[in-house]
Amino acid sequence: MGSFEEAIAMLATAAFAATGVLACAHRGVDILGIWVLGVVTALGGGTVRDIVLDVPVFWLDDLRYVTVASVATLAVFAFQRLFERLMTTLLYIDAIGLALFGIGAVTKVLHLGGSVFVAIVMGVVTGIGGGVVRDVLSGRETLFMRSELYATPILVGTSVYALALEAWPRHEAISALAAMALVFGLRALAIRFGWRMPHWLRTRPPRAGGEPA
Amino acid sequence: MGSFEEAIAMLATAAFAATGVLACAHRGVDILGIWVLGVVTALGGGTVRDIVLDVPVFWLDDLRYVTVASVATLAVFAFQRLFERLMTTLLYIDAIGLALFGIGAVTKVLHLGGSVFVAIVMGVVTGIGGGVVRDVLSGRETLFMRSELYATPILVGTSVYALALEAWPRHEAISALAAMALVFGLRALAIRFGWRMPHWLRTRPPRAGGEPA
Amino acid sequence: MGSFEEAIAMLATAAFAATGVLACAHRGVDILGIWVLGVVTALGGGTVRDIVLDVPVFWLDDLRYVTVASVATLAVFAFQRLFERLMTTLLYIDAIGLALFGIGAVTKVLHLGGSVFVAIVMGVVTGIGGGVVRDVLSGRETLFMRSELYATPILVGTSVYALALEAWPRHEAISALAAMALVFGLRALAIRFGWRMPHWLRTRPPRAGGEPA
Repeated sequence: MGSFEEAIAMLATAAFAATGVLACAHRGVDILGIWVLGVVTALGGGTVRDIVLDVPVFWLDDLRYVTVASVATLAVFAFQRLFERLMTTLLYIDAIGLALFGIGAVTKVLHLGGSVFVAIVMGVVTGIGGGVVRDVLSGRETLFMRSELYATPILVGTSVYALALEAWPRHEAISALAAMALVFGLRALAIRFGWRMPHWLRTRPPRAGGEPA
Repeated sequence: MGSFEEAIAMLATAAFAATGVLACAHRGVDILGIWVLGVVTALGGGTVRDIVLDVPVFWLDDLRYVTVASVATLAVFAFQRLFERLMTTLLYIDAIGLALFGIGAVTKVLHLGGSVFVAIVMGVVTGIGGGVVRDVLSGRETLFMRSELYATPILVGTSVYALALEAWPRHEAISALAAMALVFGLRALAIRFGWRMPHWLRTRPPRAGGEPA
Repeated sequence: MGSFEEAIAMLATAAFAATGVLACAHRGVDILGIWVLGVVTALGGGTVRDIVLDVPVFWLDDLRYVTVASVATLAVFAFQRLFERLMTTLLYIDAIGLALFGIGAVTKVLHLGGSVFVAIVMGVVTGIGGGVVRDVLSGRETLFMRSELYATPILVGTSVYALALEAWPRHEAISALAAMALVFGLRALAIRFGWRMPHWLRTRPPRAGGEPA
């Protein structure tokens, strides 16, 4: 990674941790719990990806990730009110992280010789995995049960990226940048305009009440 | 795997995905969430098994599993009312999957040189793991907290299979078929007659109220 | 491991399983669910540690762990009322396990060549991971959302241990024993006096109601 890319990755890790913490801070979590939830949100997705791919977990050998996530988490703890006011800004930085880590995961899988389908799945897992684990640990509803547009931008972006690599295999860098812009753009629009999944793209409630077994 | 076995495996994967989706569809989940929950239900158990055993995750190199699970999930999404009416049929196909994947996992562990106890544990994990992860992700109660007979048939079947392999090591195929029939039969009876764990095989509520710390 | 250490490890495994089971037994769980929850509580933390480190999962090759956890779980099931009365004693034995397994994990990571920070994280994961997974599976609030002092003793103890190894690298055994005593002592005080995290070490509730997105 070049140093510009690295700086973005660290900024995005910090934003993942900060938005992750703010999502459950209002419940009165203690400092140690907040630290775990912040680090899990920031690093959880990539950890699941690396475990499934059976490659070394990325933060074991590069301490900057745990350090940045820890510092960001503790900063949010110390200045909770300030960060709550910055929430919208943090959501946009989080969207940069979603774009960077999601598209980065696709590249990683393809370079390891994985198939396009696996690459797309891993892009989505890397982007949303940390937040999902955080929700499970803190008893929040996971994003699968909400209709917020969070996973959709990353699914669209990784799919377009995979197609572009098939079509123009010699222009990986340009495709990657365009795909990141697409993920970020869709997510930013969803944040700005409160976009949700339309009604007809959701399952229907039961006709007469009564949960299927 | 022979082609008959393969056809059964794909049918069972589809049934795992379909029953998995129907279990949470009534809550109004969007199409992307449903896709993740369907694929996780179908492939989650085997994924956990392979990660614990540290062997390559089975669906990374055989795209048919993700594809079949995805198609089944989207079919349920598109024709939700139809599949809801087929729920009982799907439960029986799901029971075939439970038998096939559970006993298959035992064989896999033993061929890798694992002990009988580990093989039984992995049979149960493979059979129920996907549904458990789906329940956690969708905020449903996991089957550990219900008294439905779902894990019991697979535990009984894998144990009998392991004993049979000790007793008649040269008749693996016959033992495997008999064990699958046992798992399926027990589960089918549980579906048909609504069998649950008897009262004396459940823990007791607190005497005077008050949860132990 | 020497035979004294082994005896302690088995005793602590049994206590992890027993306290794990008692934490959800009052909800009326069936015998198979209780078995899974007991074994998961006892072995889950070390399993997550080994998967992240990509080393063989410790109980695959040493059946005593699964066996001891299973026997302890079934004993609690059979004599639930008796064990409920022994709960406080079990909590102290559980604290011994927390000390032993947490500090043991630090040693394991450092011997594998891992960094100090990773060793501390893995010490905490090993100590609390099983209970966290049990809580997720049984629908309990995880300890991150409570303010009980459970993770704090292990975080303090592993940090002091890591510092001591830096300062006196030739006295690993003495440092390990002292760190275990520290973990156990802090946890025992927390049990005895009902210590919780002070108010100022917890995040604040929202000012005017309304959960941040």
